[in-house]
Amino acid sequence: MKAAQFYGKKDIRIRDVEVPQAKDDEALIAVEWCGICGTDLHEYLVGPQNIPIEGHPHPLTNDTLPVTLGHEFCGRVLQAPANSKLEVGQSVVVDPRLYCVSCPRCMKSQTNTCLKWGFLGFSGGGGGGFSETVAVKESMCYALRNPEDLEFAALVEPLAVAWRAVKSAAIDSFLGRAVLILGGGPIGIALILVLRARSADQIYVSEPTTKRRAQNEELADAVFDPIQEKVGDRCRALTGGKGVEFVFDAAGIPAGCYDGFDSLAHQGTYINVAGWESPFTVPFGLFMFKEVTIKPSFAYDDVDFSETMEAFNEGKFKGLEQMVTSRIRLEDILEKGYKELIENKDEHIKILVSPKAD
Amino acid sequence: MKAAQFYGKKDIRIRDVEVPQAKDDEALIAVEWCGICGTDLHEYLVGPQNIPIEGHPHPLTNDTLPVTLGHEFCGRVLQAPANSKLEVGQSVVVDPRLYCVSCPRCMKSQTNTCLKWGFLGFSGGGGGGFSETVAVKESMCYALRNPEDLEFAALVEPLAVAWRAVKSAAIDSFLGRAVLILGGGPIGIALILVLRARSADQIYVSEPTTKRRAQNEELADAVFDPIQEKVGDRCRALTGGKGVEFVFDAAGIPAGCYDGFDSLAHQGTYINVAGWESPFTVPFGLFMFKEVTIKPSFAYDDVDFSETMEAFNEGKFKGLEQMVTSRIRLEDILEKGYKELIENKDEHIKILVSPKAD
Repeated sequence: MKAAQFYGKKDIRIRDVEVPQAKDDEALIAVEWCGICGTDLHEYLVGPQNIPIEGHPHPLTNDTLPVTLGHEFCGRVLQAPANSKLEVGQSVVVDPRLYCVSCPRCMKSQTNTCLKWGFLGFSGGGGGGFSETVAVKESMCYALRNPEDLEFAALVEPLAVAWRAVKSAAIDSFLGRAVLILGGGPIGIALILVLRARSADQIYVSEPTTKRRAQNEELADAVFDPIQEKVGDRCRALTGGKGVEFVFDAAGIPAGCYDGFDSLAHQGTYINVAGWESPFTVPFGLFMFKEVTIKPSFAYDDVDFSETMEAFNEGKFKGLEQMVTSRIRLEDILEKGYKELIENKDEHIKILVSPKAD
Repeated sequence: MKAAQFYGKKDIRIRDVEVPQAKDDEALIAVEWCGICGTDLHEYLVGPQNIPIEGHPHPLTNDTLPVTLGHEFCGRVLQAPANSKLEVGQSVVVDPRLYCVSCPRCMKSQTNTCLKWGFLGFSGGGGGGFSETVAVKESMCYALRNPEDLEFAALVEPLAVAWRAVKSAAIDSFLGRAVLILGGGPIGIALILVLRARSADQIYVSEPTTKRRAQNEELADAVFDPIQEKVGDRCRALTGGKGVEFVFDAAGIPAGCYDGFDSLAHQGTYINVAGWESPFTVPFGLFMFKEVTIKPSFAYDDVDFSETMEAFNEGKFKGLEQMVTSRIRLEDILEKGYKELIENKDEHIKILVSPKAD
């Protein structure tokens, strides 16, 4: 079968590989759609960082590169284990995480930070979503209620990232509570969808690029251009001078961070979802005098994924189509996928890849 | 009367000034002891920063420099307002803060971050503790139960700073919960005393200087030298590999911050009390993968001060004498006070000044 595999920095090859063998507790999934993630681009540009290299196999898979890429995927069950809850032909979304179940964190169900964490699509094992077929633990497959939802179900994975971030605000409802999202890319939009599903009615987004602002304007209550506008002033003007109660950082850059702290109300909360490449330096005076709590949100755990899946099945995420800016075939993944997202980043939110054979 | 007044950077003068006039709601306090604070030194070395300069009077006092210094003080009532709760001769501790009572924060009793905040001893008004007599709002005077406690009652102010920081951990008891304090200076030791009063039995301190380590060893469960030892390894060794649940940063330097994040257990809390002079850059990988919550603690409010005073009156702070390394007279405040703390910082925790006339 065809698979896009990572061989090294800026070296992704589409190869013919063997269909993975399912172990006793694994299903084989025929991939329908798989999203290209920011982490995929990062690995392509400066990796291998998450992908295991020769001499340093992944502790859970024992694999090293080349590995098949792609971790945001959905598909149909080709083969199920004996006595499975899954049926052949069933539509599923896959939680692509690998975790050890035995480290101190896994023992407390904090599997998002498993000390041996890995991902299908980075760490080897049963393969990845940029191929026709993946072998996946049955327990990591979540049933889709409507097969036609396969069209957008690859978005469940980034939605789960946003779901955990929104949960970490630790409040029951966002009704009447102003929120600022820094960065209107895939995670920024996923945050909007999750916040709406949690009753938020004052969602503001700061995003510097025109195309992404336009996508966000379809969904958010206000969208700011941080190059042209003072984001803090806009937020205060919209909140009777108070500022926003929560900032979600899905950008990870110093200028955005300053805007976030400037926009926060007294005793507000700053939740970082972004992977920062420059140092995460806190605007100190605002942090102290506004008494801002700073929290991280890292990936998602079993409960987060399951809850996100349930909300997806219930149709609670309105506007999923705004997240997808292109759909391509596996053969085109380099030119129309990776390179397009790198060279024309501002024209895109999420590109979905179909590895299905004709 | 004599008063130490701030005229500008490295320009403190002991002058004869008029005794302040008490307004209708003010008492006159004869100062018994007043501590020299890190903020005092900072203002002397690089100020004026908190002290109002010509053309920019303090919004609550309308004063500019020169102002009388000293904000950590206790004394005896010389004169009380009509129908006062205070009696002449009574021993009191003063909450030296000035706040407006009318800004959005004060309206919510968040007076520690009043938008016009000031301090007796920096902002003018009724004077400061480095003088014989101060005029203070009656409501800011807290009765000492035992007059002999005046000996250490100037420490209530830094203890209130520590009290708020410890409260912000938001747990009922520290019994069985490991804590690391970065920096064994005045606030570091105040944190130990408050934590002990809150049942902490695993208090660790990281402090690079020999004299301060010795003072801390009288009070803490373990004291580390971060130059010679790996603080994170020591903390893990003392906690069965888990790390500490809370870090209190009373140092405000990057190396200490890294040690703090390294020492924290998964999902631990980092509470910053320090004023940072270099950028507060978060060790990003540890922050995200350990899921560390970061909180600030800024000064104290009315409830914090009142609770600290109550605990002081009840004798709950054991080891106050370890905080005081020298007692001097007002005439000697420059040579034996400010300069001693700057040139021989590592030999001292807190220096108390008596402005009493012979």
